[in-house]
Amino acid sequence: MINPDMLKLGSTRSGIRELFEFAQQRARIVGADNVFDFSIGNPSVASPLAVTDAIRSLLTEDPVLIHGYTSAQGLLSTRKAIASHLHKVHGVQAAPEDIIMTCGAAAGVTMTIRALTTGRDDEFLVQAPYFAEYSVFVPAQGGRLVTIAPDFSTFDLNLPAIEQAITKNTKAVLLNSPNNPSGHVSTRGTLDKLAAILSRKADEFGHPIFIVSDEPYRELVYGDIDVPYLPNVYANSIVCYSYSKSLSLPGERIGYVYVPQSAAMANQLVPAILGSARAMGYVCAPSLFQRVIERTVDVLPDLATYTENRALLSDGLKAIGYEVVEPDGAFYLFVKAPNDDAAAFSALAKQDDVLVVPGDAFGCPGYLRISYCVKRATIERALPRFARLFEKSTAP
Amino acid sequence: MINPDMLKLGSTRSGIRELFEFAQQRARIVGADNVFDFSIGNPSVASPLAVTDAIRSLLTEDPVLIHGYTSAQGLLSTRKAIASHLHKVHGVQAAPEDIIMTCGAAAGVTMTIRALTTGRDDEFLVQAPYFAEYSVFVPAQGGRLVTIAPDFSTFDLNLPAIEQAITKNTKAVLLNSPNNPSGHVSTRGTLDKLAAILSRKADEFGHPIFIVSDEPYRELVYGDIDVPYLPNVYANSIVCYSYSKSLSLPGERIGYVYVPQSAAMANQLVPAILGSARAMGYVCAPSLFQRVIERTVDVLPDLATYTENRALLSDGLKAIGYEVVEPDGAFYLFVKAPNDDAAAFSALAKQDDVLVVPGDAFGCPGYLRISYCVKRATIERALPRFARLFEKSTAP
Repeated sequence: MINPDMLKLGSTRSGIRELFEFAQQRARIVGADNVFDFSIGNPSVASPLAVTDAIRSLLTEDPVLIHGYTSAQGLLSTRKAIASHLHKVHGVQAAPEDIIMTCGAAAGVTMTIRALTTGRDDEFLVQAPYFAEYSVFVPAQGGRLVTIAPDFSTFDLNLPAIEQAITKNTKAVLLNSPNNPSGHVSTRGTLDKLAAILSRKADEFGHPIFIVSDEPYRELVYGDIDVPYLPNVYANSIVCYSYSKSLSLPGERIGYVYVPQSAAMANQLVPAILGSARAMGYVCAPSLFQRVIERTVDVLPDLATYTENRALLSDGLKAIGYEVVEPDGAFYLFVKAPNDDAAAFSALAKQDDVLVVPGDAFGCPGYLRISYCVKRATIERALPRFARLFEKSTAP
Repeated sequence: MINPDMLKLGSTRSGIRELFEFAQQRARIVGADNVFDFSIGNPSVASPLAVTDAIRSLLTEDPVLIHGYTSAQGLLSTRKAIASHLHKVHGVQAAPEDIIMTCGAAAGVTMTIRALTTGRDDEFLVQAPYFAEYSVFVPAQGGRLVTIAPDFSTFDLNLPAIEQAITKNTKAVLLNSPNNPSGHVSTRGTLDKLAAILSRKADEFGHPIFIVSDEPYRELVYGDIDVPYLPNVYANSIVCYSYSKSLSLPGERIGYVYVPQSAAMANQLVPAILGSARAMGYVCAPSLFQRVIERTVDVLPDLATYTENRALLSDGLKAIGYEVVEPDGAFYLFVKAPNDDAAAFSALAKQDDVLVVPGDAFGCPGYLRISYCVKRATIERALPRFARLFEKSTAP
């Protein structure tokens, strides 16, 4: 009587969500300060003041307008502001018509995958480690997720493996750079090579192969790391963006899909993505926050806290003996499980109210994702626990 | 290369959305005051002050919390407030675990349909006139929409026709009372009879038949009309609610699904609906507005404006000669097209910047949906145009 796939999805939840819900339950019992929740990507830095100011100012305007339906594609004024931002920052000739406002990047990705999927054989390629929910999103839209093993030496794209995995059924490569969970950022050189492979394969198979670039972490990079803008590298790129991380608005569900005019069938892709939104009941992206984005589109995140946290946690863990993958961006450390069994380590840590996500969920067993978007004190107070856990799990 | 169903959905749009977008375009050309947009259900009454006050107050709290991810099911405190509201108003023993916060009722309906659909033969029954998007939502989730002809004499449920349409494949009846577009409210007597039919048929076929009650207009009723609460009438009811109309927040996408514990397989339905949300990329309902709802859950809409508009438009149209279906609730007049060709009338009216929706979209040709959630002046200034249009379309 009930859809077994949906029941399974809802019963198991994602490992990350499960830990998050556990953390909330434990917080009610032992107090929030005694739960060391490194499990989720909930920004720990407050939204920029400009966001709060924008909301306050909007509250003085006509509420019928502010909270009313927008067009399905999103407010023209917001899409204009985004197009102009993209032109200014990345030099692309974006038009408002190329942009679709979405309920965050997750909605953008599911809408895009559904628009691209025509049959059960359609393949979407992703290299591990990858955002765990891709393995939900792709089959749920009717496609097949093809995963490529991680490159444990560099966490960079394994181009020969990608090339080999491309078949006549490949619809798109899912790219997530800065990467969740590894923090890795693909360089222009690597992306140029990827583009060349995809173009060659597209010629060979006689149809375009897209890159779906899921980039909620674009602005969260450290040092002088450059995050190349995919549409400047490869014409058939579709960008799924979210303000969840850059403006610390993850719960508000606001982002967009950008389909460059250069993309193959761009004039069909935009309506097809809008059609997917309609099919799934996405009427419009939240209206107040569409207007907030219009007013804060050029605001950059304050990275000082994440930079500090990253150093504190990375140095602390390395001093204990953990092997840490040095991240270029995002706000996660990807750490080798001391005993190579990430699930066991995560379970052990959970007993100690320390919540870390086993890399298995990201197609990368043996590693742990440890979010550093937490309070500084959480890291400081958790380090002795991480030391104890290291000892326990490496004890002979 | 591109999903033809999605392309079609996105290219054609809904008739309503198309008129809405046309209205916005025309407004930029001739000015908003010269577009008489009776096409969409965008509340024209401002959100209650309590909503704005709640947002202002929330802006003084911790932004990391306010804008952060909530659990997939929604904030416990919000679900508690809703459960308590439902108990107080309808006497149901609702628990927070029975409630799933959603991005509006459209998301709630698609999530519920997807959770209930196990194969292409699954049928969802709806009597015309019905919300046009059901014909998108049901097939997009893998089911089949079975439609029952309208009862043009009363616009009430045609119980014998419903009974006849139920087969072994019937999963649920979609109910929308107050009805969009007719404004009709089903009485307790009618619903009791419907419940008896469904129970009998469920016994006959050996599986439950659900009612999915889509009720964004619950609070918008006129005079002493009572809107029976489905879970009090029929155990296997699932309620999809939205604050779009009651709190005038249609663009904010905030509502919930309530699965009463009395419903068959309730303990599987809740996770299956959550699984559907996950499959479609609904991470959580917008967080700020989840908190707003917690604080405004008992606030009722101010119906004075709609009551006035309803009388003004209804009396005005009747004086011209139009046949009007007197609505119990919602904010639409369902009006017989003067020449019985609603599409032609709508096209004619569009040339005059008067936007009304042909009933064809609601499975009810020959009728027009005219929203009265507009400014009073819009009605006043449009009436002469409606008079001219009546003359034109009835001219021999």
